[in-house]
Formats: sequence, structure tokens, C-alpha cells
Amino acid sequence: MHQASFCQQESMEANREWDYIFNPQSVAIVGISARKTTLPSVGERYLDALLDHGFKGKVYLVNPKGGKILGLKIYAHIKDIPEPIDYVISCVPAPATPQLIKDCTAKGVKVIQLFTSGFSETGTEAGRRLEKEICSLAHQGGIRIIGPNCMGVYCPKTNFAYRAGFAKESGSVAFICQSGGHTTYLIREATKRGIRFSKVVSYGNAADMNESDLLNYLAVDPDTEIILAYIEGVKNGKRFSQALKETAKIKPVIVLKGGVTETGARAAASHTGALVGSDRVWDGLLHQAGAIRVYSLEEMIDMALSFSYLPLPLGRRIGILGLGGGATVLATDACTNAGLVVPRFPEAIHKRLSNLLGTEAGTILSNPVDLSTEAWESGFYNILNILANYEEIDLNIVHFPLALFARSLSPGNSRVWDSLVDEVIKVHRESSKPMIAVIHFASSNKDYEWMFEAQRELYEAGIPVYHSIGNVAKAINQFLSYHEHKLAGS
Amino acid sequence: MHQASFCQQESMEANREWDYIFNPQSVAIVGISARKTTLPSVGERYLDALLDHGFKGKVYLVNPKGGKILGLKIYAHIKDIPEPIDYVISCVPAPATPQLIKDCTAKGVKVIQLFTSGFSETGTEAGRRLEKEICSLAHQGGIRIIGPNCMGVYCPKTNFAYRAGFAKESGSVAFICQSGGHTTYLIREATKRGIRFSKVVSYGNAADMNESDLLNYLAVDPDTEIILAYIEGVKNGKRFSQALKETAKIKPVIVLKGGVTETGARAAASHTGALVGSDRVWDGLLHQAGAIRVYSLEEMIDMALSFSYLPLPLGRRIGILGLGGGATVLATDACTNAGLVVPRFPEAIHKRLSNLLGTEAGTILSNPVDLSTEAWESGFYNILNILANYEEIDLNIVHFPLALFARSLSPGNSRVWDSLVDEVIKVHRESSKPMIAVIHFASSNKDYEWMFEAQRELYEAGIPVYHSIGNVAKAINQFLSYHEHKLAGS
Repeated sequence: MHQASFCQQESMEANREWDYIFNPQSVAIVGISARKTTLPSVGERYLDALLDHGFKGKVYLVNPKGGKILGLKIYAHIKDIPEPIDYVISCVPAPATPQLIKDCTAKGVKVIQLFTSGFSETGTEAGRRLEKEICSLAHQGGIRIIGPNCMGVYCPKTNFAYRAGFAKESGSVAFICQSGGHTTYLIREATKRGIRFSKVVSYGNAADMNESDLLNYLAVDPDTEIILAYIEGVKNGKRFSQALKETAKIKPVIVLKGGVTETGARAAASHTGALVGSDRVWDGLLHQAGAIRVYSLEEMIDMALSFSYLPLPLGRRIGILGLGGGATVLATDACTNAGLVVPRFPEAIHKRLSNLLGTEAGTILSNPVDLSTEAWESGFYNILNILANYEEIDLNIVHFPLALFARSLSPGNSRVWDSLVDEVIKVHRESSKPMIAVIHFASSNKDYEWMFEAQRELYEAGIPVYHSIGNVAKAINQFLSYHEHKLAGS
Repeated sequence: MHQASFCQQESMEANREWDYIFNPQSVAIVGISARKTTLPSVGERYLDALLDHGFKGKVYLVNPKGGKILGLKIYAHIKDIPEPIDYVISCVPAPATPQLIKDCTAKGVKVIQLFTSGFSETGTEAGRRLEKEICSLAHQGGIRIIGPNCMGVYCPKTNFAYRAGFAKESGSVAFICQSGGHTTYLIREATKRGIRFSKVVSYGNAADMNESDLLNYLAVDPDTEIILAYIEGVKNGKRFSQALKETAKIKPVIVLKGGVTETGARAAASHTGALVGSDRVWDGLLHQAGAIRVYSLEEMIDMALSFSYLPLPLGRRIGILGLGGGATVLATDACTNAGLVVPRFPEAIHKRLSNLLGTEAGTILSNPVDLSTEAWESGFYNILNILANYEEIDLNIVHFPLALFARSLSPGNSRVWDSLVDEVIKVHRESSKPMIAVIHFASSNKDYEWMFEAQRELYEAGIPVYHSIGNVAKAINQFLSYHEHKLAGS
């Protein structure tokens, strides 16, 4: 009994800790300064972010010089703040951090996130020593450190974000990332692709709170269904391996490993002070743990999208519908090379398609289906409906090769393309078969404008959009393989 | 003597034939009709193209129904045209083509380009027979056929183009392509990347004029320095292999093979009636011939750009300068994996860099060079100058990861980014070392707007721009390997 209640106590403590990280009641930005150049200062960017996201807790600013920013008083010292502070964002220089942590301890701060860099990633003995020192001080003071050398937290549910302009809605994808730049890019691009986040942590050098802590927490976080991780190095290989294995049992974990080559590892060491393992070791580790390995941020987004949007197809048989003979040929090669099957349609389906379309020249009807310019004026609805209801196909790809058809050059063309999107959405609403859209071969501002707009309409209707057929074929194959392995292991 | 003059005669004949293809004095668009829907008709699109490009020859329209389009008289029959016709663009239905070729023979037409499809690509005996019939009729009539089932020719030097809006300036890159859509996309996208064309031919089914004819011609065409080819299948393997070998001896030939999988081959057969060989056979053939194989249109453009813009670097040692620690780590992995070398800077260079930048935290100075947000406000010029003048580096990559730094969100940021581009151009002007730019991680309309603008400024200054470090690393490796093999073979 004593044992159980102790564990309970510990677990409650741990939960409270995470609550301070993702749902602080008060935040202090320490080391904020007014902009000196055309660019806002680091501290100002954090302040902008909290204001933009409508953070509900209290926000305090600290800088020995005092003054005001956006009408907010700047306190000279954290101890001057009249109320308790849960979470500190530090922009002070590295040498000032030990004293800051002591001050935070005195103030009862729970979490300190250090944007501040200049620690182990410098590769100097002094840097490593300083990192150790702040960890030890924080431990003594009962404070958890995020970073140093990181951007911090984005948690839309609690209106807590490190950068203005991120999506305000929550989702079920978590992302932990050793690179601040990658974090920002991935949030932006994935949001445009229809992904919304539960919790994102840019955790830099991982001096205290590290990848294993974060995985263990996200494994049981009820708001998180899919976990993405960009990792340069881990603190404790055995612990990480264990945490990854346990997490991957519960939720898909998609990992991008940075610093896989010797020179890449050198760059990673300078970036986050990470001690990286060899590529082969990582490959084995990720495979054994049941994690999904990707090799770029784009691939990571493609996988997150597949897990977020796709119902599990019954098999690997894919129908391909699109415009452009050459695009269709390359699409078929890409799907086949990725391990998907592009079955030829039987005579009955072929006949139904040619009844609809006539025996129009320039039209390929046997799967892949390539519609000539004339045929696609008559729309996708009827054709796609045949594919959606044909039992020997497990999922369908519709692709829009933009610059192949001068979509942007003619308003008439543009209207036809818009109506094709509407018809894809209509078929998807009426059918339970997984549907995927690819918008590719964009080549002008107008192409991209159309792509962003169509992409939004499609994902709002539940259809994920990818930007290359090679990429989507790889993503679907990995998605199917993941579920096949799950099934085989269960 | 007799032999020689006969050959000369033949070669003059052959040259005249090519002159009719790329520099016709008069063109008739046969089968043109006024638009019935929101989209212009096929014939109208050809007419638009000739008008837009300022084609200097005469243009005639033919349709049995007569009438006018854009004030131009439509002749009921080609024989009614009062002047000779060199080049016919056919939009008539397939069954009408034999009679058209007879009429063209009577009229003395030299080249007929058939947009018309419905021949061997239908997979029917009737389609194959019709294709044979028109070839035989054309041969008898002394007419060369381009196509059927193709877009035709783009030759900016003679203001001859199949589509409005293509670049009006000439360049040194030729492209032969079995897919009309690929042709259009590649012209558009490559133009945006700074490539200009000598001659482009979308040749579809290759019933008469085929890939080997085109290669033989381009091999000796003085306007062409680099040749791109998208090929689904060849008519005569031995002849093609010979033509490719001879051409690749003289000029780089970059080949994308479509239909490399069994299902892809089935799609290719329906697309252009091509009989495709196995992937392995093609790989051997291309390698033996000394051609450069690529696997996507993007890769093809990357290679064309490398050959168009890059002086041959002295070796494989690359300097990497950019923003974003994570981006830098992945860049280093990509370069190393592609076979490039990212040498660590010696103490002397490191010192010069840190003298410039201070020992600013968040900055990596040992190659790759990753500048913190603060450091890049002070500009690229001085830093890049050190790299450009350091003898142990053979070429430099500067990369701009757009969405990592909220470039688009702040006007101040945008100005800083613009000045970075100016400084890259300035260093490039003062140095003879190859310089490459990568603009990546775009994620919004504004990102793409900036990218297109910066890309144009950079290529106008002679700096090629790529969109991913993985891609550029592969392209440089292939570019270097090509020259290494040339050198070893010479």
C-alpha cells in the first residue's frame, strides 16, 4: 500500500511537471530587449507569440535595464515580479544562466526554457562544464530545463506557442525536435498540409529534459496519437531504445535521424552537442523498436499525413487517375517500385469507362487512367466513381499535374480544375474507399496559389494531398508495412 | 568523287529537312475549330502560340467548315491556300489523316506534325495499321512525320513554338520528349530555373521521325550543347544505342526512361505505343553509351542546370554556408552521402571566421558554417569571401531555408534576405570558384514569390539555384562523375 501510494504520488508529481511545461499559469521572458535592428529581438518574438496565440496565463518581462515593450512593464529582476512564475523563457547570455537558475529557484519557478546557447554545442570544455553546472543547479532547485539552445514549446490547446502565426487549432500529432529551425518549418508546412498538433517541443541540447522523457510522456498523452521526432543524438542509448520501443507499441513514431554521416555527425556535435551513433546502429535500433524511419522533413510530413488521414486500405491495389500520359507512366513506375500494385482493369470496367468517355484518342483507360484534355472537361465524378466502387482496387490516387496543362494561363482552365477538385471531394463523401490527391508539377506563383487553396479544400474534406507520386507511393507503402507488422506481431 | 558529291547532296537534303522542321517559312493548322467550351480548341492553342511568339513565317488555317478565327480566313482545303506550305500542324481526327497526307503531298508540304492521336498507342490492330499507312503515304510523298500523338516543336530562335508563353530567348539546351505534358512542364519549370532552349521536340509515337534521328541531328547542331531526352521506348534498339553513343561522345545526354516497371511499361504502351525494354537493359545501355540517367523531371532540370551554369570544380570539396543548425546537419549528411567531401576548416580559417562573427553562440564555423539569426544580419559577404578564397574548397553552396526563419512574416526579415542574395552575387562576381545556391523549405505563397524572384536574380548573375540540398548534392556528384569519366576515357 505504501509502495502504491508512493508511486501514485510520484506519478502525480510527474504529471504536474508536464502541466507546468504545456500549461503554465504564468510565464516570464527573461533577457528580453527592444529591437535594435530591422528585426525583432529574440525576446520580442516570444512575446509576440504569446500575444498572437492569446495565451491565457500571465506574461512578465525581465531585463535589468527596465523600461517597457508594447506597454508592458519590464521588471529589473525576476524576484521583483509580484506573482509566482511557472515557466521562464531565457534569452540571457550563457554565462548569466547559473545566476538566473539560482534566482528562479528562489522564485519557485518550475520550468526554465533556454533559448540561450553557448553550452556543450560549442565543443569547448567550458561549454560542457557550464551545461553541467546549470543542470546541477536546476536539479537542486527542483526546476526542469528545456534546452539549452532551443525554441521551446508549441501547445495550441493551451494557447502556448514560441512563435506567432502558428495554427490556433489543436490536433493529434506531437513533434519533438532537436533543431529549432526544423521545428518552425515542420509546424508551418505540416499545418498547410492539414496536420494539427497536440504538443511540439524544440528541445535543443537536451541537457535535462530529453528525448526519452518526452517519448515516455507522449506515449501516454491522451491528446497525442502520432509522434514525430527529429533526433541528432541521444543521452542514454539504452534508455532511449527502451522508451522508443514502449512508445512505438502504442502509437506510430516517425523518426528522422540527423548526423548520419561522419561529417554530418561533426555538424550535429556543433549544433546540439549530440553524440551520434553510426547510421547502421540507428537503422537497427529504429527497426527493432518498431519506429518508422524517414530521411527528410518532407517524408516525415507525408507519413504524418498518411497516419492522420488515411483509413487502413484493405490491400496494396491502387487505382491511378490523372492527366498527362507521361505523368501517368511515371506515376505507375513510382507506385510499382514502391511495392504497390496497379492492376489492369478487366474488360467490364474498361467498357464502363469507355462508355462514359467514348473511345476518345489520347485517353488511357486500363489503370492507370489518363484523361485527355477533352475528356477531363467532362469531369472526374463519373469516372472516379467507377474506380471508387470497383472492388478489386483498395485505394485511389487522383493527380493534378499543374504546369503540364497551363492551368494558370487561362481562366477557363482554372475553372475546370476547380470543378475537378469539387468532384473528387464529392466522390470521397459518397465512398468509404481511401482517396489520395497529388498536386504536382507546380511551376509558377499562380500554380502554388491554386495548390495551397485546393490542398486546403481537399484536406478539409478528409483527403490528404501530397506533392509527388514517388513520395506518396513510398508513404503508402510504409503506412501499409507498419500495419502489416503490427498485425503480424499481435 | 561521285560518291562524295552524292553524300554531300544527301547531307544537304537532310539539312534542308531539318530546316523545314525548325525554321518553316509557312505553317498550316489543319483541323482548327473555334472553341466550343470554356477552353480554347487545340488548333486555337497552336495559333495562339505562333502569334504570341511572333512567328515570322506565314500562318494559314484549314477547316472544311471555313469561317474566320481572330480575323484570319479559314480555308476549306489545304489545296486552296494560295502559297506553298512547309509545315502542317494536324488536329484532324485519326481516320482523316491518310487523306490529309495525300493532300499534303499534292501541295508539296515537307513536314506534317500530328497532334492527332488514335494510332498505335490505342493498342488495336486498326491503330497500328493506320500508323503504318500514314508512314508509307508520307514516305511516298517525301513528307516527314512528327508524332503522331505529340505537341510538336519549340524553337525560340525561329519564333516557332507550339504553346504561348514560353521563353522568347534561345539557349543551348535541347529536349526531345515522348510526352507532350512532360515537354510543356519541363520547358516552363526549366525556364524559371534559368535554362533556355535551342530546340525542343515533343515527338509522341515516333512513327517516322524518331529518337535516333533527333539525337543524330542534335549531336551536330551548333546551337545545342546539352541534350535532354524523355524516352518510353525506342524503334530500333541497335540504331538507338549507336546514335546515343555517338552523341554522348560529343555532348552530355541526360536521359529519363519512362515505363521501367511492368505496369509502367503497360501504361507506356497505351501512351505512345512504345515497346519498352527492361530496366536493367536500359541501365546497361545508358551507362555503356556514356549517357547520364536521371529518375525524374526535377533531376533532369537539376542536371541541365549544372551543365549549363557550373564551371568544372577542381575537386569534390564543398563549403556549406547557411542558416539553421538542423538544416546544416542534414545538408552535410546529404553532401557526404552523395560522395562529396565537407572538409573541416583549419584553425586559421576558423579564426578568421570567428574574428568576423565574434564567438557568437548558436553559430557553427567549422564547415558547414551555420549562422545564427544575429550573425546573418551582418551579412554573407565577408564570410562567403573567406570560403571563396580558401584553396582547400572546390565549390560553395549557400542555402536559404525559407520557412525556418519566418522570412515572409516580417518586412524587416525580407529585406535582410534580399541583401543576402545581393551579397552572394557580389562574392560570385569577384571569385572564379563555382557557387551554387539552394532555396528550400518554402511553405507559403510569399515564400514562393520570393523564391522565384531571388532565383531569377541569382541565375541572371550566373548562379544556379536548386530546391533541395539532397538534389543538388546528387547533381554535382553526377556532374563531376561525368567529367571524371570523360577525362579517364580521353
